[in-house]
Amino acid sequence: MVHFEQELAELKNELLRMASHAEKAVTQAMEAWIRRDDELALRVCSEDKVVDRFEIEIDEFAIRLLAKAPLASDLRLITVAMKICQNLERVGDEATKIAKRARDLSQEPPLKLALPIPDMAALALQTLKGALDCFVNKDSASARALIPRDKQVDALNKDVHKQLATHMVQAPETIARGLHLMVISKSLERIADHAKNIAEEVVYLCEAEDIRHPGAVRTQQQPQSPLS
Amino acid sequence: MVHFEQELAELKNELLRMASHAEKAVTQAMEAWIRRDDELALRVCSEDKVVDRFEIEIDEFAIRLLAKAPLASDLRLITVAMKICQNLERVGDEATKIAKRARDLSQEPPLKLALPIPDMAALALQTLKGALDCFVNKDSASARALIPRDKQVDALNKDVHKQLATHMVQAPETIARGLHLMVISKSLERIADHAKNIAEEVVYLCEAEDIRHPGAVRTQQQPQSPLS
Repeated sequence: MVHFEQELAELKNELLRMASHAEKAVTQAMEAWIRRDDELALRVCSEDKVVDRFEIEIDEFAIRLLAKAPLASDLRLITVAMKICQNLERVGDEATKIAKRARDLSQEPPLKLALPIPDMAALALQTLKGALDCFVNKDSASARALIPRDKQVDALNKDVHKQLATHMVQAPETIARGLHLMVISKSLERIADHAKNIAEEVVYLCEAEDIRHPGAVRTQQQPQSPLS
Repeated sequence: MVHFEQELAELKNELLRMASHAEKAVTQAMEAWIRRDDELALRVCSEDKVVDRFEIEIDEFAIRLLAKAPLASDLRLITVAMKICQNLERVGDEATKIAKRARDLSQEPPLKLALPIPDMAALALQTLKGALDCFVNKDSASARALIPRDKQVDALNKDVHKQLATHMVQAPETIARGLHLMVISKSLERIADHAKNIAEEVVYLCEAEDIRHPGAVRTQQQPQSPLS
């Protein structure tokens, strides 16, 4: 089983390589927006193919490993890896969306509003990196601690949305730009959401307990989760 | 292996039960919006728990089955079921978003714009039902035929977005309502996207070929997909 263990380690490594591409895409999309750098935005869009390719390859690798997994805990690890992979692919998609809107915005004068969008990006990326660290270290406690961060990003997104909606009413010529900014803010909120999903998968992996829907009613066959 | 086959059939059945809940949620959310029915909208939101519960239970069931799957094709079926399940859970989330915006909109006078939002809902739901039928019948050809429908819904969403943005500029007092309608339209676009994902999973299941990212560059270890 040494060989199998090595393959599992390789699966994790591939996932981390994918994660670093997805994180880089988000960072660069934000840079493209802040620096009004059209070329960088274009590069982010074209490099999304790399993250897409990782998804296909990790999935195929995972299915091959499932066929030889000796333990239930291996099955859990592999299916969790597949889910993390799917979340990372979506993070890449959101980075592309941000980059596209950055390109649209670079064509027009910047809005003079102090929006907490850079804070949202910082929080979302921290949560994403944190969740992946927890996956590597099988650190369930830290993963649990990350989950509430998602709510902070949600609150910031609502704040951005409200500020922009108010500003649009006062200055209708800013509507198009305001809508682009709302999309960027929403994408960051989604990235934080994917980071939270990853953190929840780590908790499930470590504790074999599903915390994704604390309010979900269970049927009698299922044990009640202590969190619900 | 008769027992295992029965369990696989049960897994599929559970998935179809989940799908019918998710479809009902979308239909009712649209009804709540069109009929300005606040109570129905509230019910859609509270019943999302049912779809969430299905996700947890189907996932657990799938992992138990993975442990005893004798064939590679079974592994594929089970992992595809897990992915379909995740897509359905997100369809449920989108239905809830539509219902929430329907509630907000029912507080204000309706906008006098003929937007193709009901057509989008009809197309999205048809695609979703179609994709699930393809899953049941292992009908790869029909699943492939469904995939382009997603682009139609995308185009309608862009049209709605453009009409609303123009209207907002002309009538800034409609901005808040316009934004709610944009969210509903975007949610329908996402539902069509999930339906397309399901159709792609069916193709993969039948043809053991990944068509999710036709443009993705493959490394040398991976065979070139005929579609890429």
